[in-house]
Amino acid sequence: MSNRRNFIKTTALSATAATFYPVISRGEKIFFNDLPEANTLPVGIADYTFLHFDIPQSIQMMQRLELHFMSIKDFHLPLDSSRAKIDEVLKQYRDGGITIYGVGVIYMKTKDAVDQAFEYAKKVGVPVIIGVPDHDLIDYAEEKVKAYDIKLAIHNHGPEDKLYPNPTDVYDRVKNRDSRMGLCLDIGHARRAGVDPSKAVLQYGKRIFDLHIKDVTKGEKDGQAIEVGRGIIDFKAFVKALRKINYPGHCSIEFEKDMKDPLPGIAESVGYFKGVKAGTV
Amino acid sequence: MSNRRNFIKTTALSATAATFYPVISRGEKIFFNDLPEANTLPVGIADYTFLHFDIPQSIQMMQRLELHFMSIKDFHLPLDSSRAKIDEVLKQYRDGGITIYGVGVIYMKTKDAVDQAFEYAKKVGVPVIIGVPDHDLIDYAEEKVKAYDIKLAIHNHGPEDKLYPNPTDVYDRVKNRDSRMGLCLDIGHARRAGVDPSKAVLQYGKRIFDLHIKDVTKGEKDGQAIEVGRGIIDFKAFVKALRKINYPGHCSIEFEKDMKDPLPGIAESVGYFKGVKAGTV
Repeated sequence: MSNRRNFIKTTALSATAATFYPVISRGEKIFFNDLPEANTLPVGIADYTFLHFDIPQSIQMMQRLELHFMSIKDFHLPLDSSRAKIDEVLKQYRDGGITIYGVGVIYMKTKDAVDQAFEYAKKVGVPVIIGVPDHDLIDYAEEKVKAYDIKLAIHNHGPEDKLYPNPTDVYDRVKNRDSRMGLCLDIGHARRAGVDPSKAVLQYGKRIFDLHIKDVTKGEKDGQAIEVGRGIIDFKAFVKALRKINYPGHCSIEFEKDMKDPLPGIAESVGYFKGVKAGTV
Repeated sequence: MSNRRNFIKTTALSATAATFYPVISRGEKIFFNDLPEANTLPVGIADYTFLHFDIPQSIQMMQRLELHFMSIKDFHLPLDSSRAKIDEVLKQYRDGGITIYGVGVIYMKTKDAVDQAFEYAKKVGVPVIIGVPDHDLIDYAEEKVKAYDIKLAIHNHGPEDKLYPNPTDVYDRVKNRDSRMGLCLDIGHARRAGVDPSKAVLQYGKRIFDLHIKDVTKGEKDGQAIEVGRGIIDFKAFVKALRKINYPGHCSIEFEKDMKDPLPGIAESVGYFKGVKAGTV
């Protein structure tokens, strides 16, 4: 027990050592030390994948794929949910063997929206918000990050986006801020914006708090979402880069093809990513 | 054209150089030279996977997974099929973008069954039969291999099998025979029989003509079929072994779990295997 205590003591939320990372759900901290290789780079799901499904259907798909980590989107848990509603939804996932490790993507266009996002994240009990704050709200969001001790992972979109068309736009705006300000690197949008995901990983290192993993048909604006492994992203290089920075977070698949019948595509994507992990140990 | 001719000339059926391998369908030979890495160890399907589905349903699943190679089982093309029936079925697959590269598993308990198997394979136009001849028919089968110039890949089952409980039983019976007598290495059954698939690959090398790829929950008789990557088989070692022997054949997934709703499991298995390939290039 004293080991565990020391362990927690030495583990700051901003720590990024590969051999331990915290999974926090509803204030209950679970720490994994010296994870076996098979458990590093844990695969999860970005909930947007399940846009057309309710919570039980989503849980069923994740169970079939033996996935246990998810960042939840507001269509499954509205931002203005009551404490009772949050408890009810979290229980559904927990009973299904799923840990909600983050919330988002949450768009923040006003101070009120920033306030709401952090209150929501606190109530849900997650250590990270995946968010898109307007540029002029980043200062305010940073104050909240400090006040709540909750990380903000700003999500990059692709070349068509006004705010964060590529991960460099995020990085440049957070690199000199509190260490809990960082990125949710969306590798599909990044690649469409001409950014090599593995180079982004090496460049932005400890500022990467979350990942949206997908593949795209081409490295241009009109590149389409496709099963992981079928597109143009070099996943071997990507996984090697993640290992190199000792990425301590989750590797969440966001599958945006066949969204009304996504299970086979999610399965292939999860399989491929796990296979690359196994092949690069 | 003369290049192609030279190429065919230098390519014996028993050749195992990695940079070229023949895919033969209905007597029409297609040769791939200097395949890009992505196309080596091509993934296919062992048709037993589709036990509960008709041909159009099977084709639809393979198309969704972008799979183009299959060894066909008799429930989709009976051994006593007429020329017209064979043509009709082959056309269905060909129109679906699928090459039938082998037939089987075919059990041969009599000389008549051996005769029928080779006539069938010839009519279907495949270079290999995946088969299980009774021990006392192996001499006779070898005669047929020579007469038809069609390879016989003897399929190992697991520890409960009377004839070929592990791949060593196959190898020992073919190793001093015609070079077209070899194995269809079923890695799941092998692993249940206590044989490490990667060691088997290195040991049996050029005698391996086909693969049934799967994973199992444990290395014992009662090990269960499971999605590739979730079980105990070391796929990194397995793929590295295949590369080492320049395995020239197909890597066919045989998925035997959830057989009435197999698509997600096949997808995960295919994804994982491709991911390991990508991770070990």
